[in-house]
Amino acid sequence: MMDLTGKANYWAEINGEVVLSDWRVQLLRAIHVSGSISAAAQQLDIPYKLAWERVHEMEQRLGQPLLEVQTGGAGGGGATLTPLALDLMRRWGDFRQGLDAALIQHFMAAFGSKPDAG
Amino acid sequence: MMDLTGKANYWAEINGEVVLSDWRVQLLRAIHVSGSISAAAQQLDIPYKLAWERVHEMEQRLGQPLLEVQTGGAGGGGATLTPLALDLMRRWGDFRQGLDAALIQHFMAAFGSKPDAG
Repeated sequence: MMDLTGKANYWAEINGEVVLSDWRVQLLRAIHVSGSISAAAQQLDIPYKLAWERVHEMEQRLGQPLLEVQTGGAGGGGATLTPLALDLMRRWGDFRQGLDAALIQHFMAAFGSKPDAG
Repeated sequence: MMDLTGKANYWAEINGEVVLSDWRVQLLRAIHVSGSISAAAQQLDIPYKLAWERVHEMEQRLGQPLLEVQTGGAGGGGATLTPLALDLMRRWGDFRQGLDAALIQHFMAAFGSKPDAG
């Protein structure tokens, strides 16, 4: 009906605190692909401090590390995702993919027909 | 896995502007039940001005009235929802009910099993 569009934001909490969201998983993926927090921050156009703080916050809330950070060395250091981080990224993708379809389906079922009045 | 809980916020837009949300529909329902904007505002513990502005905003974005307002009279005036407002409330309820179940189902499918690591 009309031009209504159904929208949603999704996140996952532990003890009422956000741990995963589209944005947070995007940050992890950027670190995974680029190999460092600073390169990921640049790619997402956010300050390094914010990227670092968000990852640190997620680790604290999970009670487990998401990154193995290498300092110094020939390549100047970098960050590798832990198996847990890779697992959470994969699960988040599964979760979100199913929901995008469900949202459209439920929205069309409820709002796709003509209104009773108006 | 762990104590992760899946959460979501839902809304409906017209031209990129919010028209319906759980809170907005709750406001309409309170007006419907109480029969006036001021009683609804009191019930939701928000200023009358905010309640009035939100309804007015929804009407503007929809391009159609949601309330028929009676001023004065023996009862001191009041507000009745239009058939369109009642229809939108019903549709929003249908939409949300289906999604609550879908969210839990998809979250359990993705995060319900043990993590690969950690």
